[in-house]
Amino acid sequence: MKASSDQPSIPFSRLGRGIQPPVIVDLMARALANPELLSLAAGFTDNAVLPRELVGRFAAELTNSGLEDEPLQYGQNQGRARLRELTCERIATHPGERLAAFDPAQLFITNGSQQALYLAIQAICDPGDIVLVEEPSYFVCLEMLKGLGLRPIGIPCDDAGAILPGALDCLLRTLDENGERERVKAIYLVSYFCNPSSRSLELDEKVAVAEALLANGYAIPVIEDAAYRELYFEAPHPVPSIMSLDAFASFPKLYLGTYTKSFATGLKVGYGYCSHAAWLGKILGIKGHQDFGTAHFNQSIIERVLDEGLYADHLATIQQHYAHKAVVMHTGLLAGGLLDAGWRWEQPKGGLIFWLRGPDGADLRMDSAFCQRCIEHGVLYVPGDLCFSSGKPWHCARLATGALPERRLREAAERFAEVARRL
Amino acid sequence: MKASSDQPSIPFSRLGRGIQPPVIVDLMARALANPELLSLAAGFTDNAVLPRELVGRFAAELTNSGLEDEPLQYGQNQGRARLRELTCERIATHPGERLAAFDPAQLFITNGSQQALYLAIQAICDPGDIVLVEEPSYFVCLEMLKGLGLRPIGIPCDDAGAILPGALDCLLRTLDENGERERVKAIYLVSYFCNPSSRSLELDEKVAVAEALLANGYAIPVIEDAAYRELYFEAPHPVPSIMSLDAFASFPKLYLGTYTKSFATGLKVGYGYCSHAAWLGKILGIKGHQDFGTAHFNQSIIERVLDEGLYADHLATIQQHYAHKAVVMHTGLLAGGLLDAGWRWEQPKGGLIFWLRGPDGADLRMDSAFCQRCIEHGVLYVPGDLCFSSGKPWHCARLATGALPERRLREAAERFAEVARRL
Repeated sequence: MKASSDQPSIPFSRLGRGIQPPVIVDLMARALANPELLSLAAGFTDNAVLPRELVGRFAAELTNSGLEDEPLQYGQNQGRARLRELTCERIATHPGERLAAFDPAQLFITNGSQQALYLAIQAICDPGDIVLVEEPSYFVCLEMLKGLGLRPIGIPCDDAGAILPGALDCLLRTLDENGERERVKAIYLVSYFCNPSSRSLELDEKVAVAEALLANGYAIPVIEDAAYRELYFEAPHPVPSIMSLDAFASFPKLYLGTYTKSFATGLKVGYGYCSHAAWLGKILGIKGHQDFGTAHFNQSIIERVLDEGLYADHLATIQQHYAHKAVVMHTGLLAGGLLDAGWRWEQPKGGLIFWLRGPDGADLRMDSAFCQRCIEHGVLYVPGDLCFSSGKPWHCARLATGALPERRLREAAERFAEVARRL
Repeated sequence: MKASSDQPSIPFSRLGRGIQPPVIVDLMARALANPELLSLAAGFTDNAVLPRELVGRFAAELTNSGLEDEPLQYGQNQGRARLRELTCERIATHPGERLAAFDPAQLFITNGSQQALYLAIQAICDPGDIVLVEEPSYFVCLEMLKGLGLRPIGIPCDDAGAILPGALDCLLRTLDENGERERVKAIYLVSYFCNPSSRSLELDEKVAVAEALLANGYAIPVIEDAAYRELYFEAPHPVPSIMSLDAFASFPKLYLGTYTKSFATGLKVGYGYCSHAAWLGKILGIKGHQDFGTAHFNQSIIERVLDEGLYADHLATIQQHYAHKAVVMHTGLLAGGLLDAGWRWEQPKGGLIFWLRGPDGADLRMDSAFCQRCIEHGVLYVPGDLCFSSGKPWHCARLATGALPERRLREAAERFAEVARRL
């Protein structure tokens, strides 16, 4: 029975009524559908450095003979114990982290870190509630929050994405004055090579967030999204996570990480680490209803790679690879004359994203003449307004360097620059 | 920072407050944690017939060289186009199905069919809403519905799980009289080798459901869970799905299937087929927020197996295997003297489940003396009260034959029978 216009209408749920087709889905579909269009939009990784050999080797090993702990069987809802242990150890290798801060019993494995974020938000937010975010912030998160009927509210940041001193304090007092205190349920920070700003939170900035929250009596859950943390170019960002910082000791905390960016995207294995026992219990309860466990085979493969000590080498290779691509993009934008044309950006120190600010008054939104010209020139980007809770300003663009091979990345930068310098 | 009792309390969301630790998670954990305990509880498949060779072969093939359509990259939110096509063709091979009834554009791939069910319910149900279910019904669905703040209401069925003629009609009129009409948002039917009743809906029974709904003006979404449909022993159940039955033509419909039972459990690939364009749009929108796509690698493996025509042979092997295990269980229960002791059950014609009814007045609940004695005797089952929306009656037990190897299955049946005949 094909869908047709004479179908009965369904009274959708509150959530259902609020759902709009996610932009991420559209962007991914466009990129996959039209190979002529050079996509700087979807945050894909680079096929060239996906760990085909490692995944193939351990997939073969794991299916070669019947194992007591069968990878093709169901696993546990929370995820494999050994993988959770290895993941905790892995997080603890970052500068300033304390291994004691990471207990495998509080880590849970998910279908990408997106699911961990979704579950955590489901547990603590009702429609109408507020989640504080940076400006700009991860647009898929903003869409997801709005889809759940929530109100992301941006903490004023400078043009490059740094939280303005005193801004959070001022925002919290304003929310108080407007009687919104009880609606503020969480703060969401993309603190390592932020998607989209590409910057990382500095220690004093992070501590200032905790102090402003405490000074105003907001002991709310703090969610730290570290999806790109491992993709540093020269050196890891030296600031420890909220889990190891004394300033955050009294907060309920969630730390999000993933193996989709740093290892095998198509295995879709991410994780969350939750410091708060009751919150974790709710998260696991909801996951039990949503899918009662992430693909056991995929977890087993990554566990084997980590256990054999093969992860770090792979990571070093892709760090170098993505560092080079960032240079290609930076050089391309410079060569395209964008500085003279009034465009600004920081050269990223990690991650897969460039965050460009066009001249004041520029309109780069999805339905703008600029965006249309870019598509005509065969290049796609994420309009920056999607990364702001209010949908403004309109003069920014997110360019992702992950997917395209070097030659095509150079071409995409050229195409973008050609349109951009004539803005 | 370890979880401790001095953690600040979080004001959980309405959903969060309603979440209880899912029984399924507890059962899976018990089964995995204690190999001495023979578990007839968790609905695992049999490690002995998991398609290790096929998964290993195609995992190797898919990682052997860089493919344009890279399996280790992200895929699309809705799932791989070719896999959706092959899945539609696969469903259409069942007796009475019309291939024209299955359009790949309306099929979506999920993390097991559980996620498809969860997404579909999210799109149409608000807290307090009603979902009609069989008695008994799939306990993980009942838990999930309750976790979302919904009210599953059972359609009166006979002891074996057959819907009593006229019962749905009567229930709908009662709901009307109680002013609940607007709260009834869906009906959920496990119509092939039902987990837990093991029976399949007959054609007249299915048509009667549609007629009762229409006669009372309930053109509500109909969800058909066909997770076990392919695991028939002698022959497929001859009744077509709701998608191909004229009686259901005017309903919004969702059909749920999965490759976790019939192929590789640990790949966690399931699917939903939705006849209703707007409902499907909402489902995909929510999935875009929840994880924006199921593991692409896993989808690619299953697609290759289907495309190479290797699925049917594997299925034939496991059908035979599970048919034999059902005989082992049936024989074991008979040999254990359960008939004389007043227990009743149907011998399943497919699936992995036996549904036992103990003598009237028996209490088999989780905290009953009977359940305790079973655990002392080293055997675990799912108390049947969990499969009823009201938590009653208490005299039923669900025994799953999937996980244990033959020798241990026989032993488990013996252990269960020993406790049961002394009830």
